[in-house]
Amino acid sequence: MIKYDKEIRVAALIGKYRSPDVAGSLRALSVFLREHGVNVLIEEGTAEAVGAEGFEIASYESLGLAADVAIVVGGDGTMLHSARRLAEFDVPLVGVNLGRLGFMTDIAREDMLSGIQQLLDGRFTAERRILLDAEVLRGGQRVFQTLALNDVVVNKGEIGRMIELKVEVDGEFLYVLRADGMIVATPTGSTAYALSANGPILQPLVAGIAVVPLCPHALTNRPITISDESRVDLTLVAPHDGRVHFDGQARFDARAGDCVRIGRSSHSITLLHPPGYSYFAMLREKLHWSAAPKH
Amino acid sequence: MIKYDKEIRVAALIGKYRSPDVAGSLRALSVFLREHGVNVLIEEGTAEAVGAEGFEIASYESLGLAADVAIVVGGDGTMLHSARRLAEFDVPLVGVNLGRLGFMTDIAREDMLSGIQQLLDGRFTAERRILLDAEVLRGGQRVFQTLALNDVVVNKGEIGRMIELKVEVDGEFLYVLRADGMIVATPTGSTAYALSANGPILQPLVAGIAVVPLCPHALTNRPITISDESRVDLTLVAPHDGRVHFDGQARFDARAGDCVRIGRSSHSITLLHPPGYSYFAMLREKLHWSAAPKH
Amino acid sequence: MIKYDKEIRVAALIGKYRSPDVAGSLRALSVFLREHGVNVLIEEGTAEAVGAEGFEIASYESLGLAADVAIVVGGDGTMLHSARRLAEFDVPLVGVNLGRLGFMTDIAREDMLSGIQQLLDGRFTAERRILLDAEVLRGGQRVFQTLALNDVVVNKGEIGRMIELKVEVDGEFLYVLRADGMIVATPTGSTAYALSANGPILQPLVAGIAVVPLCPHALTNRPITISDESRVDLTLVAPHDGRVHFDGQARFDARAGDCVRIGRSSHSITLLHPPGYSYFAMLREKLHWSAAPKH
Amino acid sequence: MIKYDKEIRVAALIGKYRSPDVAGSLRALSVFLREHGVNVLIEEGTAEAVGAEGFEIASYESLGLAADVAIVVGGDGTMLHSARRLAEFDVPLVGVNLGRLGFMTDIAREDMLSGIQQLLDGRFTAERRILLDAEVLRGGQRVFQTLALNDVVVNKGEIGRMIELKVEVDGEFLYVLRADGMIVATPTGSTAYALSANGPILQPLVAGIAVVPLCPHALTNRPITISDESRVDLTLVAPHDGRVHFDGQARFDARAGDCVRIGRSSHSITLLHPPGYSYFAMLREKLHWSAAPKH
Repeated sequence: MIKYDKEIRVAALIGKYRSPDVAGSLRALSVFLREHGVNVLIEEGTAEAVGAEGFEIASYESLGLAADVAIVVGGDGTMLHSARRLAEFDVPLVGVNLGRLGFMTDIAREDMLSGIQQLLDGRFTAERRILLDAEVLRGGQRVFQTLALNDVVVNKGEIGRMIELKVEVDGEFLYVLRADGMIVATPTGSTAYALSANGPILQPLVAGIAVVPLCPHALTNRPITISDESRVDLTLVAPHDGRVHFDGQARFDARAGDCVRIGRSSHSITLLHPPGYSYFAMLREKLHWSAAPKH
Repeated sequence: MIKYDKEIRVAALIGKYRSPDVAGSLRALSVFLREHGVNVLIEEGTAEAVGAEGFEIASYESLGLAADVAIVVGGDGTMLHSARRLAEFDVPLVGVNLGRLGFMTDIAREDMLSGIQQLLDGRFTAERRILLDAEVLRGGQRVFQTLALNDVVVNKGEIGRMIELKVEVDGEFLYVLRADGMIVATPTGSTAYALSANGPILQPLVAGIAVVPLCPHALTNRPITISDESRVDLTLVAPHDGRVHFDGQARFDARAGDCVRIGRSSHSITLLHPPGYSYFAMLREKLHWSAAPKH
Repeated sequence: MIKYDKEIRVAALIGKYRSPDVAGSLRALSVFLREHGVNVLIEEGTAEAVGAEGFEIASYESLGLAADVAIVVGGDGTMLHSARRLAEFDVPLVGVNLGRLGFMTDIAREDMLSGIQQLLDGRFTAERRILLDAEVLRGGQRVFQTLALNDVVVNKGEIGRMIELKVEVDGEFLYVLRADGMIVATPTGSTAYALSANGPILQPLVAGIAVVPLCPHALTNRPITISDESRVDLTLVAPHDGRVHFDGQARFDARAGDCVRIGRSSHSITLLHPPGYSYFAMLREKLHWSAAPKH
Repeated sequence: MIKYDKEIRVAALIGKYRSPDVAGSLRALSVFLREHGVNVLIEEGTAEAVGAEGFEIASYESLGLAADVAIVVGGDGTMLHSARRLAEFDVPLVGVNLGRLGFMTDIAREDMLSGIQQLLDGRFTAERRILLDAEVLRGGQRVFQTLALNDVVVNKGEIGRMIELKVEVDGEFLYVLRADGMIVATPTGSTAYALSANGPILQPLVAGIAVVPLCPHALTNRPITISDESRVDLTLVAPHDGRVHFDGQARFDARAGDCVRIGRSSHSITLLHPPGYSYFAMLREKLHWSAAPKH
């Protein structure tokens, strides 16, 4: 991973959605950053939750343009949300976890200030993560579009026990899936929902996208990893409607005949990691892998 | 995939190991190629099995240097063997299948001559496939080295019910695996043994290597796909000896303390496919996936 | 399996739900049965779909009391529905399949009359299958109750990406499941939805119930088979609501705090199979298992 | 589970195989038991390892006939071994674990004496566990026979990458398996090797046997649970030889054509559990399941 030592003059603070309990952490961060000559912006929704007083408030758009870094205090869900909102800007993200460490929030609450000191000292490393660009086509027209850092999930809607999806990769027919649904995940998302559906873990620097069926009727419909330069089209075969979920946060109700088209976004995000960060160590911790030989 | 239209002046023929029953096919091929002005070499082991008469015999090394294409008549096993033997030369491979189509032998016996006609007409496409370079280190010294197109498998030896492997990626500790063994597979090998061990299918153009535990004691030791620029070290933790298998064809008996080091080879091979070849269509056929919507 | 040679004097006919296309089969059956001195009743919903003329119509309740056998013409879904409706009566079921054979409908349409002839000749065998009795408790009060031949599924409702279920077996705490949901399946249901969620196949004469998590967050939450004399309680942990599905046909919207209590019903059903029926042969056919050694 | 309050007048002590480090525990046990008026026998192999002095030595056969209980100090492997040796006698087993608790050794070393006090006080409960009876038939003649408490595993031998097994249940053909091997496991063994091969967990009171393929070539060859009154025949299809493992402790080299016949033994063993023992709590501990809702 690459050293990240750009000077930080403006830092944006983003807190967990509607969570007043991050107020203390954000104020401490703010004081600390200002003492070190860094201007601080607070995201407006966060300000609403924790109280605006003494903060300079900014929308995602404004802070996307102005900030040198976004410090996200919350969990992986908050990181996902911030990443999607800031994707079109070039603001790197740092995650501070309120509870136990997350897949993307690798600074513990109690190490927050010493961590940020190391960030200011230029001791962090930078890592690029791809995003998915997903759109829904109806009769050839785009009716919805959004980004996802983890995954796009098409699953059965209100009615019925399964959906039927025609799956194409780069316009080439793959198969018709009869299943609860399909997960299309980035390497980042490969350790999230896709993992619980028996998907493969993809190291973030693998240029791949995991295509993972949810409870497929055919036992041979196994997960496939395709190139991240490929495009996946999932078309809902009549009579099944379906639902499309983006990072588990946004949702679109799709109809029979709709095509969900998914590919790598032209945007990507940058995660900043503290010294000593290791992807494998994080996996080991989160998945309870053995730490060392018994001997 | 890229059109392959280099002129073919010398063709090498390789038959299934010790199989006299490919003699007829090879003779028909030979006659056909000569009629089209192509010089024909036959691999010496093949000649021994089918009778040398009327053939110009060559070692793998000689035909590697001289041939513009190697036509392999057999199954996937024969392709694996030929690929490993010819990897250091730049000879593309074409596979003719004796029985039902294989993952890599995509010309049916009955379409052999019309297929080869299309090859001579420059209508085939070329696809690169990576190979693994595997070596066994003992006390820091290399004691074995070979290539694999599908996979390198380290598993338990004669004695005992499991082995214990320290797994490192690019020198970084991943975990200690207690299992029957570990499969390290290329995208080509991802649809072979690794698939039966719950490994992920990797589309051949994904630049990844699948690391797939065999019956791991810890249920969270799930398959991981790493970058094909990464190196995997599997070290046998005492007291367990192990066996190392390369494409299921070569084998090395490793001792406790030995390190099996696996990475992408600097060599790769080129598979030539007939017009109309589709990787997904092949998977659909081999894995009995649905061909089309019911409606 | 036990020979079934009770005399058949009254046969009930049940057709696929709202399917006029079973009319021909039902009329042919009716004529055939009467020619053999068997009285014929037709289920009233079926009569509505296929036209009542010339049939003696009966409700499920009436035919449950009067019929010696129920001949179900449709697919596995029709069998499930009929089984649940007739469970409290002691009417054995025979399944005639309209399309390819089902898991429970083992007489092909073209063999229908010869099959029924064998039934009348006392050449069928009888097999008991358990049913699940499921009830939903709210504040200790039963608010819903029904039977299921395949499975009871509790899954996430409209909102949210997972549910949290406290799982108890015979009042003893098992674990808290964070997942898409949980399937509780009979041996009959073990080859249906549960199989696609990685559940174990249970031979029908195993006195067990499969408890199969749907996409569990914890990778160690593996399927468990418990005794069919055990009772499973699934309690929705706040704030998650959920949905409960019974054989994929009935549904109940459950709230946080509700307990879904599932155990073996005191009722069971009897399936009648034609001579030559084999459970394993059926599995082999449905799951595309190999028929014989290659040699 | 049933209260176990038979008077204990003779206790047998069995230690971990060739492990001098259980000497202290065994001596402490011995002193304690004698102080409580219980005669103590020590298994002869154990005596060899820990020193015989002051102990009354007995073979498995003698102590099988004389003892009211066998106290096993070691791990699950020691329990397996003792269970197989004592199966034909009616001696219940109590397991004391040297390290962390096992699946079958549910008294921690530090609770040993208070645990045994509770045993003498009649406060333990008794649980029956089935054993498998396995024999190898060659040309119709039995050439090997033994018992297994966990599992019988047939897998590939020295040569080759897979074996081919004809699988029959109660004489009825199931399928031909092409795989690394096959595990046939009791409920006790369902949480051992079979679990790492994706087998189902069977609660001990389920009267079933798990039949679990090891890396099957056909992705639809899923684990099946059959009745424990059924018999499984696994016949090695030529040209493949195989190895048969019994609880991972005994081994038999089988040849092509050999039939491994497995069914429930007429013997069973009795495990005694301390007050408060819970199978589910043990699973929760061993499989790292959640202990309680987060809330």
